[in-house]
Amino acid sequence: MLVETISRSATLLQKFKTIRARTESICQPLEIEDYSVQPVVDVSPPKWHLAHTTWFWEQFILVEYDPSYQLFHPDFAYLFNSYYNNAGERVLRPNRGLMTRPTVKKVYEYRQYVTDAIVRFCTTNPDDKVWELLEIGIYHEEQHQELLAYDIKYILGNQPTFPTYQGHFQPQKETQELHFIPIEEGIYTIGHQTDGFCFDNELGVHKTYIQPFEIANRLVTNREYLEFIDAGGYQDFNLWHAEGWDFIQKNEIKAPLYWHKVKNEWQTYNYEGLHSIDLDVPVMHLSYYEAFAFAEWKGMRLPTEFEWEVASQQFNWGQLWEWTGSAYLPYPNFSKVPGALGEYNGKFMVSLHVLRGASVATPPNHSRHTYRNFFHPSSRWLFSGLRLVK
Amino acid sequence: MLVETISRSATLLQKFKTIRARTESICQPLEIEDYSVQPVVDVSPPKWHLAHTTWFWEQFILVEYDPSYQLFHPDFAYLFNSYYNNAGERVLRPNRGLMTRPTVKKVYEYRQYVTDAIVRFCTTNPDDKVWELLEIGIYHEEQHQELLAYDIKYILGNQPTFPTYQGHFQPQKETQELHFIPIEEGIYTIGHQTDGFCFDNELGVHKTYIQPFEIANRLVTNREYLEFIDAGGYQDFNLWHAEGWDFIQKNEIKAPLYWHKVKNEWQTYNYEGLHSIDLDVPVMHLSYYEAFAFAEWKGMRLPTEFEWEVASQQFNWGQLWEWTGSAYLPYPNFSKVPGALGEYNGKFMVSLHVLRGASVATPPNHSRHTYRNFFHPSSRWLFSGLRLVK
Amino acid sequence: MLVETISRSATLLQKFKTIRARTESICQPLEIEDYSVQPVVDVSPPKWHLAHTTWFWEQFILVEYDPSYQLFHPDFAYLFNSYYNNAGERVLRPNRGLMTRPTVKKVYEYRQYVTDAIVRFCTTNPDDKVWELLEIGIYHEEQHQELLAYDIKYILGNQPTFPTYQGHFQPQKETQELHFIPIEEGIYTIGHQTDGFCFDNELGVHKTYIQPFEIANRLVTNREYLEFIDAGGYQDFNLWHAEGWDFIQKNEIKAPLYWHKVKNEWQTYNYEGLHSIDLDVPVMHLSYYEAFAFAEWKGMRLPTEFEWEVASQQFNWGQLWEWTGSAYLPYPNFSKVPGALGEYNGKFMVSLHVLRGASVATPPNHSRHTYRNFFHPSSRWLFSGLRLVK
Amino acid sequence: MLVETISRSATLLQKFKTIRARTESICQPLEIEDYSVQPVVDVSPPKWHLAHTTWFWEQFILVEYDPSYQLFHPDFAYLFNSYYNNAGERVLRPNRGLMTRPTVKKVYEYRQYVTDAIVRFCTTNPDDKVWELLEIGIYHEEQHQELLAYDIKYILGNQPTFPTYQGHFQPQKETQELHFIPIEEGIYTIGHQTDGFCFDNELGVHKTYIQPFEIANRLVTNREYLEFIDAGGYQDFNLWHAEGWDFIQKNEIKAPLYWHKVKNEWQTYNYEGLHSIDLDVPVMHLSYYEAFAFAEWKGMRLPTEFEWEVASQQFNWGQLWEWTGSAYLPYPNFSKVPGALGEYNGKFMVSLHVLRGASVATPPNHSRHTYRNFFHPSSRWLFSGLRLVK
Repeated sequence: MLVETISRSATLLQKFKTIRARTESICQPLEIEDYSVQPVVDVSPPKWHLAHTTWFWEQFILVEYDPSYQLFHPDFAYLFNSYYNNAGERVLRPNRGLMTRPTVKKVYEYRQYVTDAIVRFCTTNPDDKVWELLEIGIYHEEQHQELLAYDIKYILGNQPTFPTYQGHFQPQKETQELHFIPIEEGIYTIGHQTDGFCFDNELGVHKTYIQPFEIANRLVTNREYLEFIDAGGYQDFNLWHAEGWDFIQKNEIKAPLYWHKVKNEWQTYNYEGLHSIDLDVPVMHLSYYEAFAFAEWKGMRLPTEFEWEVASQQFNWGQLWEWTGSAYLPYPNFSKVPGALGEYNGKFMVSLHVLRGASVATPPNHSRHTYRNFFHPSSRWLFSGLRLVK
Repeated sequence: MLVETISRSATLLQKFKTIRARTESICQPLEIEDYSVQPVVDVSPPKWHLAHTTWFWEQFILVEYDPSYQLFHPDFAYLFNSYYNNAGERVLRPNRGLMTRPTVKKVYEYRQYVTDAIVRFCTTNPDDKVWELLEIGIYHEEQHQELLAYDIKYILGNQPTFPTYQGHFQPQKETQELHFIPIEEGIYTIGHQTDGFCFDNELGVHKTYIQPFEIANRLVTNREYLEFIDAGGYQDFNLWHAEGWDFIQKNEIKAPLYWHKVKNEWQTYNYEGLHSIDLDVPVMHLSYYEAFAFAEWKGMRLPTEFEWEVASQQFNWGQLWEWTGSAYLPYPNFSKVPGALGEYNGKFMVSLHVLRGASVATPPNHSRHTYRNFFHPSSRWLFSGLRLVK
Repeated sequence: MLVETISRSATLLQKFKTIRARTESICQPLEIEDYSVQPVVDVSPPKWHLAHTTWFWEQFILVEYDPSYQLFHPDFAYLFNSYYNNAGERVLRPNRGLMTRPTVKKVYEYRQYVTDAIVRFCTTNPDDKVWELLEIGIYHEEQHQELLAYDIKYILGNQPTFPTYQGHFQPQKETQELHFIPIEEGIYTIGHQTDGFCFDNELGVHKTYIQPFEIANRLVTNREYLEFIDAGGYQDFNLWHAEGWDFIQKNEIKAPLYWHKVKNEWQTYNYEGLHSIDLDVPVMHLSYYEAFAFAEWKGMRLPTEFEWEVASQQFNWGQLWEWTGSAYLPYPNFSKVPGALGEYNGKFMVSLHVLRGASVATPPNHSRHTYRNFFHPSSRWLFSGLRLVK
Repeated sequence: MLVETISRSATLLQKFKTIRARTESICQPLEIEDYSVQPVVDVSPPKWHLAHTTWFWEQFILVEYDPSYQLFHPDFAYLFNSYYNNAGERVLRPNRGLMTRPTVKKVYEYRQYVTDAIVRFCTTNPDDKVWELLEIGIYHEEQHQELLAYDIKYILGNQPTFPTYQGHFQPQKETQELHFIPIEEGIYTIGHQTDGFCFDNELGVHKTYIQPFEIANRLVTNREYLEFIDAGGYQDFNLWHAEGWDFIQKNEIKAPLYWHKVKNEWQTYNYEGLHSIDLDVPVMHLSYYEAFAFAEWKGMRLPTEFEWEVASQQFNWGQLWEWTGSAYLPYPNFSKVPGALGEYNGKFMVSLHVLRGASVATPPNHSRHTYRNFFHPSSRWLFSGLRLVK
């Protein structure tokens, strides 16, 4: 999982402190009541994120390596484990929103307690494995920062009162004219090849043969997507996967998530209440099914993740995660890290699709062009968009 | 609904203030996080109770009768209506627990605002109808006080940490030896016959013919119920209604609600964490199915609501609501009050069973021997018990 | 369960043969394919009725009393038991429609085999208990004959092609003008008081006090019910129980079962394809909720089962089962018959409503004015109607 | 879809007659009752297959091209369309098992009528498009022949009586010792490159770069799979996808489909009742999750569909469809056939996995090494097996 040697521990420890503070600053605009609710299974309560990222440090560094460490509370491992079956029992995911205790205040105390303990322990010059885990933990907490942005938007955007949120994450307008960049046929090398950090699913560098294609220089905008809606795109089953068609019928979906038709005008929730759609901004909060149907309607398609990786030097990216046509599968020679940390990536390699790029909610310096994000094709609350290929 | 003239408005206004304060004092031991959660459909968030009882006063007195009244907030009618279809749209019941806004603080402001407005308005000597509504509103808020006790117990009793609650409502030990009181055959008069307040479902005074029976002088205790459990009562389908048998199979019920088997001993949550069962206390938190099965096992039965009413002068009651064998149906000559207030009782007269008496969570002076409480046979979170008849 | 002595065994045996043949004649117009299907949980496949009524004789008479009897097939007890938990394992109700084997032909062989065995055994002059069981079994099979009529109508009436069925059961027009028959206040005796056969739930003769009321001389007709539909009865929640309102919303019910709006005209399936509604015929296939809402709309109500029994000498009945306002509960002194046969009636005494009378599908001589039929308030496939009381 | 010119129409018409007869011969051992049942959503009633394959000919050839053709019955297009949204309304899939009419006899008449009409029409020398459709229709009906084998096994294998079926499809023992065949790294060409028939999803011939790998010469056997079961494979979540783990927990899966533990021995239904497992036969009726977990347990993996295609000349295949690690996605340059026929393949290209090879239930001459079969990862009733790669 780690391909570099940790050279400068002081820098890493400083980064640790910065990341811990940033998680809290994302939650700072919330009311206490907003912290505990879980409106749908995919959305976790902010309190849970705050505690779970803390539990991660406690479990994988302090409990494992610091013999002098005293648990903050014996129940917390049970309460705030997420999917790590190897690390013991856990609260079933749909019940996270029913946990009113421990309180938010107590969870912030837990954070402070563990942050202090990590700082204290890491200044004792622990062995290399701890520094490795520190780096992994930083990336882990950053991933939860992005999920926090999604989940907070979902919680607030589903209040009947559409409350505002100060620390908002909002994509900018696309200013470039649309054109298509040609990429040549040939053998390309895929995967993470530098010394920097990456996750295990980016390893297994390998060659792939790519047919010639052309890729858009920018994301699809709200203006373009509105044309699809107005042309009856949500009513024409020929554009959809059978599974996607069932999904939009069953859930009565007629527009991206957070869009509401108010007095015959499409409006959207953007952290500042309901507002008219900004036509020049990239369309966001699409499922894979919708991204696919849009491309089908255009007579084009989505890039594969390999095409995206190869072409990504030639366009700007980073406003929204971009759905690719690739299922999330292991690279050749992929192997899981042993133990609980290895549980994460491999076990999701069925039924999900890869997104590439990054979003406005991605923490600074967290993105890479080899990064493989993955969600279920029906997911809409993430910050997703799409780029066309022909 | 009201059978008396309101004679002393000052007394009523004083009672109003007392009741408003009592609702808040029931919630006082809660953390902010406890106010918003709805763990199952039947349990409403305490915040919702606080706001809904306030909305009731605002909607039925201030909006209707006080032309100078300014709404606290235009959305609140939508957010805190419960089942009153005649009073406009409402938040669907299962979604109450997802409303993080308005905050608890804002809801307390709403309470204060409406309490002040009622006091101010009622000191202007409004017409008799307002005093009538004031009395109904007091009973309405008292009913929610009892539900608050149930709901708070459910919320806290389902936390993995079993937190304590100061203002607890706990039945006392039964000290009397069990014996059976004989009641003579004959014609009896049923229903509310005095000048005092009652609900519409108690009216329609009528005669009923009762066959001779004998009724227990006290409730069934935990000791007696444990014998039923130990004798395999939950495993013998001959004791159960077909519907009850399906219910306990599907929900894997093997004991009353809040009972947990800890290291081979039955313990129960009683607002002070998990504790051993007190054998002399009346058994509580039974469904009708369980009460019926226990009586069947004893070779006895539950009283009808008429038998209970006739016999109630001859035994102590008031610790727990007592399941009767009577379905909740209208008395002869029952007629609904016109308008939204009339919606309440009649519309529930199918599929529910009557409970008689009162419980330790019933507000002072709220009980009468003609009071008809009603719940679904599967309900277990209310403060229910049972009394045998043979 | 039996209150008379069986005097004439020859008559009984003759009746047995007649009843067995009648069951088969009801199924005679069916195609083989119609015998095995279970479109909803409440509807059993005709093949199952044919086999289950046969299993009943085999299990309760031949296996119990005839030492020389050889089982037709060892698996059949498992396959064709219904709800008799005391008689061993059974096929779960929703899976009955998946049993393609044994074939219909094999089931008819099973019927013949058991019919012959019963006749043979009963001519040996068995003891009185066997004659008692023979009479019970006849009534049991007759009950299934009526269910067969319901289930066959449901199976055929839900085919996209609306096939015809020769042996149809169709109510006649109501020819009398509507008037109301007054009944005097007083003490009446309820329950089965003659020597003839009755079920256990009719026993427990007891006195009841009845307030004065007036009851309609005939059933409500399609003409009257159409007025209710046209007046928006299915859209006015004030007429409905809360549970009934949820039921019609969730199932999008806007008319009785089998009614279809074809080119702006209401038509109904009546065993002969879709046809226009006959306005003079009693309205049928209503749930209790609908019967209640109609009466509410009329400003009247349904009779209680006691009122119905008292008044039934004074009007014609027998075209359709009549919903009463009474929940299905035990009479005073009700006690279950011991053993498997006693399972039947008592275990359903929660959540159901009583219907009184009989229907055109009730076998000849099977009806009595003390007969207590019972179904869930949401049931619509039975032959139900309603009579008003004011 | 068609890459060859149809040269010999007489051969094709002969093949048409053979295929029609073969479909009927597969159903010949069934009882009438077996034809109409749909025990789970994925399994269609045999009657439906018989009628749907007939409707296909009627709709796409006779209705489109033969102006003299008279419909057999106007409702049948509605009743027997499957997923072709472009060809009009259809019976919802889960309701197929409730259609008792038309009868099996009528459906066989429908078959004969349409078979005769096709033969008559094709002897008139229709245009090339008709011959193309005739070939597609033959492959379509052959696909349903294979599904019939799956569905008949499911219907009979889920009868409590485990009836026999004469025309059984049973894999043979694997006789070869296991060894691994090495394949060299390099660029390979994928897709259908000959003149023969293929489906649209095999077109888009393209190059792919393959890393070196070794592939097993034979399928995994029951003996090997039993070792996995006995080693606790179904209890170790580290071997499973998260989705697969949820699937086996929720459905309580502990062995392949049709395996039953009888008196501590594993038995399986194989068209001849329950029998002991034959240890040398390839393991079949696995979901993709189980195939993956087994390979994980072995420290190996499944082949990708490209690896399989490249290596397939070097081992025997055809007993069972082989799960690959590849998601079912379009080849580069894939484009759907216009119109209703084009609906088939493209709309399923999300969430499914590719199987390669063929099975004992695949019709003669229907298999190709470029053939891409696809099912949901949870499917178990198809004739699936697995081959290891390292």
